[in-house]
Amino acid sequence: MPAFEPRNPDFETVVRESFAKQTVMIAINATLTTVKPGYVEIQLPYSPNLTQQHGFLHAGIITTIADSAAGYAAFSLMPAGFNVLTIEFKVNLLSPGVGDYFVAQGQVIRSGRTITVCQSNVYGHDGSNKKHVAMLQATIMQVEVAETS
Amino acid sequence: MPAFEPRNPDFETVVRESFAKQTVMIAINATLTTVKPGYVEIQLPYSPNLTQQHGFLHAGIITTIADSAAGYAAFSLMPAGFNVLTIEFKVNLLSPGVGDYFVAQGQVIRSGRTITVCQSNVYGHDGSNKKHVAMLQATIMQVEVAETS
Amino acid sequence: MPAFEPRNPDFETVVRESFAKQTVMIAINATLTTVKPGYVEIQLPYSPNLTQQHGFLHAGIITTIADSAAGYAAFSLMPAGFNVLTIEFKVNLLSPGVGDYFVAQGQVIRSGRTITVCQSNVYGHDGSNKKHVAMLQATIMQVEVAETS
Amino acid sequence: MPAFEPRNPDFETVVRESFAKQTVMIAINATLTTVKPGYVEIQLPYSPNLTQQHGFLHAGIITTIADSAAGYAAFSLMPAGFNVLTIEFKVNLLSPGVGDYFVAQGQVIRSGRTITVCQSNVYGHDGSNKKHVAMLQATIMQVEVAETS
Repeated sequence: MPAFEPRNPDFETVVRESFAKQTVMIAINATLTTVKPGYVEIQLPYSPNLTQQHGFLHAGIITTIADSAAGYAAFSLMPAGFNVLTIEFKVNLLSPGVGDYFVAQGQVIRSGRTITVCQSNVYGHDGSNKKHVAMLQATIMQVEVAETS
Repeated sequence: MPAFEPRNPDFETVVRESFAKQTVMIAINATLTTVKPGYVEIQLPYSPNLTQQHGFLHAGIITTIADSAAGYAAFSLMPAGFNVLTIEFKVNLLSPGVGDYFVAQGQVIRSGRTITVCQSNVYGHDGSNKKHVAMLQATIMQVEVAETS
Repeated sequence: MPAFEPRNPDFETVVRESFAKQTVMIAINATLTTVKPGYVEIQLPYSPNLTQQHGFLHAGIITTIADSAAGYAAFSLMPAGFNVLTIEFKVNLLSPGVGDYFVAQGQVIRSGRTITVCQSNVYGHDGSNKKHVAMLQATIMQVEVAETS
Repeated sequence: MPAFEPRNPDFETVVRESFAKQTVMIAINATLTTVKPGYVEIQLPYSPNLTQQHGFLHAGIITTIADSAAGYAAFSLMPAGFNVLTIEFKVNLLSPGVGDYFVAQGQVIRSGRTITVCQSNVYGHDGSNKKHVAMLQATIMQVEVAETS
């Protein structure tokens, strides 16, 4: 995986402050665990209240943490005064959303001037077992703060 | 848009019964409004508890209703005794998740023997205004019920 | 489908001049047939020299015309002095690449300030039959000419 | 990257024989260089006859080798008597198609009973420089030979 230099020395603070404003993360009980330059982890316990028809975690909820992990991985490399906008993503659902808890690992693959491409992998953890649940590939655009807020 | 013949005369009942088991829909307050052969609508009121950092509906929640609308559009065309499994989807976020409520319209594009391809469009409604918020393209696989439940 | 106003009155000329510079189109024998604001058609005869292992037109060649149809649909709406850059696309292969000739219909779905989202549908034509071969969803960025040339 | 056991001891032979039937590879001058279980490399020299309007290798040609690398990576893990069908893929174009030659590295990410998910990375090589040109995520279905030939 590529290593990146943050352009904002306060990258961890701005990522954590922004994450704290995502009310959906409180609603689903997700936590931002790791923030490194170009890499972010979000953890989510399984809940029987967030499932599809077979009791598996719903793909949309898996996507919620995968998308935010990708977006904050990109955001961690932004200069001060810039924000990110997710333009699109593609998700492959590799195995059912089963586990005690889930970890979404967001990673920057390519950091361009305007466009950042990220990948997120979501794993379902069950005791000492770990299953690859989803893989997301996202396109994220750098925007000046004034444009989005 | 193509017109489809349902292979299960009880398609609306099985779709509605399955949707009622998606606990995430209760958690986010989404409703299954329309069920036709190859076409499904899901409605979701805006909630300040399901947002990203700028107060817009989170892309993962938009995806949750778009994904289920696509999946149930495919499911509405399955023969009795068969289920659907979403393999993957791609979502373009066309404008911020703003509106009083959101409608996801899932539509079958191509119904094959094993693979069904669907499109979902999500619109944000604000008074009499309607904005195209997201477009999802999904690949869904037909599976025998015994395989998934 | 949405209707669009071109911002460059010479849109058809600039699209056709740019297409003429795509040497790959000569190599595969593709022709730009229709250019309207936000809509483009590219036609390609079947060739036994462009196939995969079963004699069907290779998915990469189907993508070549689908991608260019999407890109030129977006380009047709650009102001003078701007160019387009395809950031990403997703293609569903709906049926085998069979037919006497293929038509890729590229259509702008959403025209934003920086980002344009397009869809292309590719049909295989065989006598009076027409088969939906592929559906592409693409994200295209507007860039100033100096940036790309 | 995951390691895989081939289920067909003749995997390299069947992959190379199938590749030899892809006439498009002759047309664009691509070569199958490496075949390992779950991993394939395809090499393509730059040609001024396969470009888009700025002289860069056309995204559709980049996709042609990326798609086949993914498909053959999946095929290398199939049991004897089975074939593969690419259902869909998504490609991010990370930098312009510049280089003396291009290498597409196809890798199986998840090998399921019916569905295999692969990733391909395409690099442009220029002297001793190597640039990440494209990343493809593909969904591939296992089918019995009788179904496709």
